[in-house]
Amino acid sequence: MDVLISEVGPRDGLQSITAIMPLAAKKAWIAAEAAAGVREIEVGSFVPAKHLPQLADTAEVVAFARTIPGLTVAVLVPNARGAEAAIAAGADKITLPLSVSETHSLANLRRTHAQMIAEARAIATTIAALPRQQRPHFEGSLSTVFGCTLEGAIPDALIARLAGELAAAGCDEIGLSDTTGYADPAAVHRLVKLVRGVVGDDRLTGIHLHNTRGLGLANVLAGLDAGLTTFDSSLGGLGGCPFAPGATGNIVTEDLAFMLDAMGIDTGIDLQKLIAVRTILAESLPGEPLYGFLPDAGLPRGFRSVAAAA
Amino acid sequence: MDVLISEVGPRDGLQSITAIMPLAAKKAWIAAEAAAGVREIEVGSFVPAKHLPQLADTAEVVAFARTIPGLTVAVLVPNARGAEAAIAAGADKITLPLSVSETHSLANLRRTHAQMIAEARAIATTIAALPRQQRPHFEGSLSTVFGCTLEGAIPDALIARLAGELAAAGCDEIGLSDTTGYADPAAVHRLVKLVRGVVGDDRLTGIHLHNTRGLGLANVLAGLDAGLTTFDSSLGGLGGCPFAPGATGNIVTEDLAFMLDAMGIDTGIDLQKLIAVRTILAESLPGEPLYGFLPDAGLPRGFRSVAAAA
Repeated sequence: MDVLISEVGPRDGLQSITAIMPLAAKKAWIAAEAAAGVREIEVGSFVPAKHLPQLADTAEVVAFARTIPGLTVAVLVPNARGAEAAIAAGADKITLPLSVSETHSLANLRRTHAQMIAEARAIATTIAALPRQQRPHFEGSLSTVFGCTLEGAIPDALIARLAGELAAAGCDEIGLSDTTGYADPAAVHRLVKLVRGVVGDDRLTGIHLHNTRGLGLANVLAGLDAGLTTFDSSLGGLGGCPFAPGATGNIVTEDLAFMLDAMGIDTGIDLQKLIAVRTILAESLPGEPLYGFLPDAGLPRGFRSVAAAA
Repeated sequence: MDVLISEVGPRDGLQSITAIMPLAAKKAWIAAEAAAGVREIEVGSFVPAKHLPQLADTAEVVAFARTIPGLTVAVLVPNARGAEAAIAAGADKITLPLSVSETHSLANLRRTHAQMIAEARAIATTIAALPRQQRPHFEGSLSTVFGCTLEGAIPDALIARLAGELAAAGCDEIGLSDTTGYADPAAVHRLVKLVRGVVGDDRLTGIHLHNTRGLGLANVLAGLDAGLTTFDSSLGGLGGCPFAPGATGNIVTEDLAFMLDAMGIDTGIDLQKLIAVRTILAESLPGEPLYGFLPDAGLPRGFRSVAAAA
C-alpha cells in the first residue's frame, strides 16, 4: 500500500447531519468498507451525548470495529476525559483537534490554546502509563490551519508554535486539518513545510481536507507531492464541520480512491466494492444527499486498477 | 499574466444543451466575461446550423467579440470549410479537433484520421495564403486523448503519430483534450511529455480538461506542474461533449480562477466580477443547471487576490 485513505464518514459525516444512523447500520458500513480494503476508519467521537447524539454509541462502535482484522480504529476526542473513554473502549488511534484559531477553539470546545495543550499533555501522560501494547497512537490535529471563518488567515508563527507545543506535549503525530475548506495547493505545500520544519518529517504524514471550494483533490495532489501519505475522506462526501458556518463538504472517498488508483498509487481499495457500500448509507439515512463524481460517471472504459494489475 | 484561462462556455457549453441562447445574451456574456479579465473566449463553432442550431449565429458572435480590445476570439471548426467561414468572420484562433479514437472521429465528424489530417493541411494552406497580419492562430486538438468511451485507452504510439502529423500539416499548436473525462494527474504528465517529445515544448501549451470524475482541478495542477500555461473551462460548468455518452462536465471557470488566484498565480481575472457574470446565464437559460463550488461557498474570509496584491 502506497497511500492510506482514512475514512472519517462515521465520525465527521454523521456528526454533521441531524439524522441518527442506527448502530446496526454503522456496523454494516464499517464492516463493508473494511472489506472493500479501507484500512483506517474514524468510527466516532467521545463527546457528551447531549452535544452529539449521533455519536452517542461510539464505545459500542469501537468495540465492534476492533473485531475487524487489520483495521485501525480511530476516534476523535475533545479532551482528556474523552481520551480516557477512548482508551477504555480500545481505540487504536486517538485524535485531539486543536484549532489554531483561538476564537474557533473557544466557540467549538470552549477551550483556550493553553487549555488544549494541557489536555494534550494529560492524554499523553495517560497513554504513557499504559502497557506498551495497549497504547493508542496519539495525533494532535491543527484545525482551521488554512484559515478560519471567524478570524481569517492564521499567522504562520502561531501555527508553528502550536505544532511545537503539541509535539512537546507528547503527540506521536501532528495533523493538518482544513476545517473551513480554505486550502489551496500552494498553501498545502507551504504548511507541510512549515510544520515539518518544527516537528520533523516523520511526525507529519496526514492531512484532513475538505472540498468546500472544489479544490479537495487538487489539494490531495499537492499533499502527495509534498510527501504526505495519509488522506482523510468521507464516503459519499457525507459531512463537514457544523461549527464552521458554510464549511461543509468532505472529500469523497470514492473519488479520492479513484484518483489515486488511476495514478497507479496502491490504496488497497477495491473501487467497485467501495461504491457498493453507498447502499448502506442510502438505506439507513433516507433523504440524505450523497455526493461523488465517480459513482455517477462510472469507471472509464477499460480502466485497469492497480490492485488488478498487481 | 501567468496563466491563460480560455473560456469555452459559449461553444462547448451551449452546444451541449438544447436551449438556444439569444444572440444578445451571448454578446452580453462575452462582454461581461472579457470585462472581468478573461483574455480568450471560444465564442462558437462553424458547423452546419442543422447539426448545432445553438451555434448558428457564430459569425455574428465573432464579429461582435472582435470589437472587444485585447480579447482573443477563438472558434472551433470541424473541417476546412468551417475554417474558411471562421477566417471570413475574422476569428483570431481556430481549433480543429482530431479524435485520436478513430471510432469516435467517425461517429462525431464522419472522418477517418487520414481525412482529418487532410483537412488540417488544407486549413494551414489557406491560412498561409493570407497576409501575415490576418492569419489566425491554428490549433490542432487531440481529442479523446486520455481514452474514449467507445475504444477505451488509445495507444501512445498512435497519439504520438497523430500529433506529429498535425504538426507536419501546419498546425501552430497541438492541444490535448480530455473529451471523456478520463484524465488523471499521472496521465496528464505522461501525455504532455509524450506529445512535447514529438512537437516540441513551445507547440503544446494548453489543455482542455473535463470534471466528469471530479479530477478536473487536480488535472489542472498536474498540467501546471508539467509546464502548461493555458487551461479551458466553462462558466458555471456549462456543457461537455454530447457525442461521448456520459461525458459531460467542463471545469468550472469560477473554481479554476479561484484555485489559481489562491495559489498566487495571476490570471488577470477579477473573481467577484466573474461570479457576477453567472446572472446572464441564469436569466437567458432559465432552468439550466449551473455548477461551481466557489459561487456557493464564497471567497475565504480575508482572501487576498493576486490582482489586489499587485
